[in-house]
Amino acid sequence: MSGTAEILCIGTELLLGNITNGNARWLAEQLAALGISHQRQAVVGDNRERLIAMVREASGRCRVLITTGGLGPTPDDLTTEAIAAALGAPLVEHPQVWATIQARLSARGRPVAASNRRQALLPVGAALLPNPTGTAPGIIWTPDPAGLDFSVEPGFTVLTFPGVPSEMQAMWHATAAPWLRDSGLADGVVASRMLRFWGVAESTLAEQMADLLEQANPTVAPYAGAGEVKLRITARAVSAAEADALLGPVEAEIRARSGSVCFGADDDSLAAVVLQQLRARGQTLAVAESCTGGGLGAALAAVPGASDVFLGGVIAYANALKQGLLAVPADLLEVHGAVSDPVACAMAGGARRATGADWALAISGIAGPGGGSADKPVGLVHIAVAGPDGCHSEGVRFGSSRGRSWIQTLSAGEALNRLRLRLAT
Amino acid sequence: MSGTAEILCIGTELLLGNITNGNARWLAEQLAALGISHQRQAVVGDNRERLIAMVREASGRCRVLITTGGLGPTPDDLTTEAIAAALGAPLVEHPQVWATIQARLSARGRPVAASNRRQALLPVGAALLPNPTGTAPGIIWTPDPAGLDFSVEPGFTVLTFPGVPSEMQAMWHATAAPWLRDSGLADGVVASRMLRFWGVAESTLAEQMADLLEQANPTVAPYAGAGEVKLRITARAVSAAEADALLGPVEAEIRARSGSVCFGADDDSLAAVVLQQLRARGQTLAVAESCTGGGLGAALAAVPGASDVFLGGVIAYANALKQGLLAVPADLLEVHGAVSDPVACAMAGGARRATGADWALAISGIAGPGGGSADKPVGLVHIAVAGPDGCHSEGVRFGSSRGRSWIQTLSAGEALNRLRLRLAT
Repeated sequence: MSGTAEILCIGTELLLGNITNGNARWLAEQLAALGISHQRQAVVGDNRERLIAMVREASGRCRVLITTGGLGPTPDDLTTEAIAAALGAPLVEHPQVWATIQARLSARGRPVAASNRRQALLPVGAALLPNPTGTAPGIIWTPDPAGLDFSVEPGFTVLTFPGVPSEMQAMWHATAAPWLRDSGLADGVVASRMLRFWGVAESTLAEQMADLLEQANPTVAPYAGAGEVKLRITARAVSAAEADALLGPVEAEIRARSGSVCFGADDDSLAAVVLQQLRARGQTLAVAESCTGGGLGAALAAVPGASDVFLGGVIAYANALKQGLLAVPADLLEVHGAVSDPVACAMAGGARRATGADWALAISGIAGPGGGSADKPVGLVHIAVAGPDGCHSEGVRFGSSRGRSWIQTLSAGEALNRLRLRLAT
Repeated sequence: MSGTAEILCIGTELLLGNITNGNARWLAEQLAALGISHQRQAVVGDNRERLIAMVREASGRCRVLITTGGLGPTPDDLTTEAIAAALGAPLVEHPQVWATIQARLSARGRPVAASNRRQALLPVGAALLPNPTGTAPGIIWTPDPAGLDFSVEPGFTVLTFPGVPSEMQAMWHATAAPWLRDSGLADGVVASRMLRFWGVAESTLAEQMADLLEQANPTVAPYAGAGEVKLRITARAVSAAEADALLGPVEAEIRARSGSVCFGADDDSLAAVVLQQLRARGQTLAVAESCTGGGLGAALAAVPGASDVFLGGVIAYANALKQGLLAVPADLLEVHGAVSDPVACAMAGGARRATGADWALAISGIAGPGGGSADKPVGLVHIAVAGPDGCHSEGVRFGSSRGRSWIQTLSAGEALNRLRLRLAT
């Protein structure tokens, strides 16, 4: 059957369970979005013989084999060599690839090792799959099956990517996705939109949308992340325009049913949405962070162009800094404790005064594992939103079962979401 | 070869990229800990024919096939039936399993659906792999190869688990792990240690360790992350004590060759190492962050118990805050620009004064995508380390190709590493 792809992830670290195979999921999502059906995934270690065996098996079964990993300069990076051997082609050095590798390393002040030169060896007849961000290029190769003693799927093509997610993703978007779109492998055109939610449980959202989750086209599928819930709408049609036309009504229906818990679509982050709300008002934002230690500011600074809205703020991890830098009165800390609404509001107010920002978000909580008590357990976080029209603070309990970084991540998201809702009214 | 296992994860949601395959990683870790070598992982959708094909392939290749998913009551739960069909055995109902299923559902006030009865059908001759927490039991089955028209690995055994991680894990610990320990599949015990490095290229490290990378036992394998490089040492022996004894000398040799670029092992993070160095000295730390926006503070706050060393600091994203909260002289900003050594040192000094901390780290750089110039390109970051014995600042160029969050992550890591090295002298 034409139009099928397989994913082969290469690396002993996957077989040892040292890392989770996030690349396989990412590639699977990309293939689905392109409308290319994909029936198998496999993982193999850094072992030449087994790699050769798996490439040969796949060559008789699928049209496109997508590999990740094993393109680095070290001896256990065997992917390119094993693929060439599996399909009976010699390797040739590509001088311009070697030149690019040397230039990249020098630009980063890194020594050029002889081993890097291996990365410029590609199978005869293979096209380059450029790596805009790293040294290891990939290949797009439709080998000549003549002379092989095993049968190869007509048009069988292999695409190789490094295992570093950021490099793989950049190569995919720049070269592989366009190639696949033009490859005729897609079964129609798929358009998809990811709607993003904060402040609702996946099960609750799934029940609200139960009938939509049963639909065949567009399909609606829920995902849960750290505090965030997503619904992906995927429509399949003969043209992009028709696929988009199918998405619209379903998106509108979901937004109507879910209301304000839907904060955006696709690449929107809570931080990006809040920054845009404030930008539109010509207002600025500061933070005062205790248990998140800077995570809220980092989420805002992660958005390109944040600087016109986000001024900065204070990381008041120690109580002395809450007093010294945010002018939180000592008696407030004494009477109510650092994790309380009065202190959170005082922190937010102090951040506004110290920075001159129109708005400030303050977070004070117990991230654990230590520091909890009966009335103030691990996972209790007080979050204040202070603005021109005053301050409101409220406590939230994230629980302790998922650990410290979970509590810190959810605290930053909850703070942003509260400001989003306040600015929306 | 005896003693080999394969993992087969079943579920269309994996092929669509709806979920990450965390079960494969968990099972891989468990197998490694048992010393059972494991050479392949595969993923297939809820498709009877492909499932049958993959089970037959595996039966001719490995001693133990471990499957997850497809044990539920719904029509797309096909695992047990497909495995029985693949290996030519009929299904028989296990009355006690059916009784348990009904009892469990009733106990939870759930209706007993006719479809649940399918879960009591197991291949003739298969032993039950009990599910203490859910309704779907698994099997431990060594099928009789007589009468099959394909060859089956002698002693080939299949173990099935549901896809729900908590159920799979409980079944593994209660029944599967003991069975595997007694199965004679374990080729000794595996012990492994991950050494962690900052400030060295993977290729450079690999060349320094070239001879060690060739070793068979212990093996040494390099991995690259965001700015960090790792070397995993894996030793195999008949006992845990002997495996550990094999690790020691190799670790010592690697540490001796690599010197100060090795900052820790296993779960150590740069932040945790620096906090421990300061804790040992009874000293405290503050941060002054511009382009990282709080990411450095968040990295420190991510470490449990950071509060005895990390006081907090200032996020001076806007220049006005560099002056207002960190007392950076206006003329320094004018003459040298915010991204410069004099300003970075002034920020670090200001953070020490404002917080009373013994040490301060300051970061000022251009994270991009905008804001770069010919002499100060995107990716240029100045990092200052200020302590009781003065301040030192230096610029570093991370390049722009990997984008904003990469530059922010590397900046925080580089700052921590500089303090680590300074404290080590």
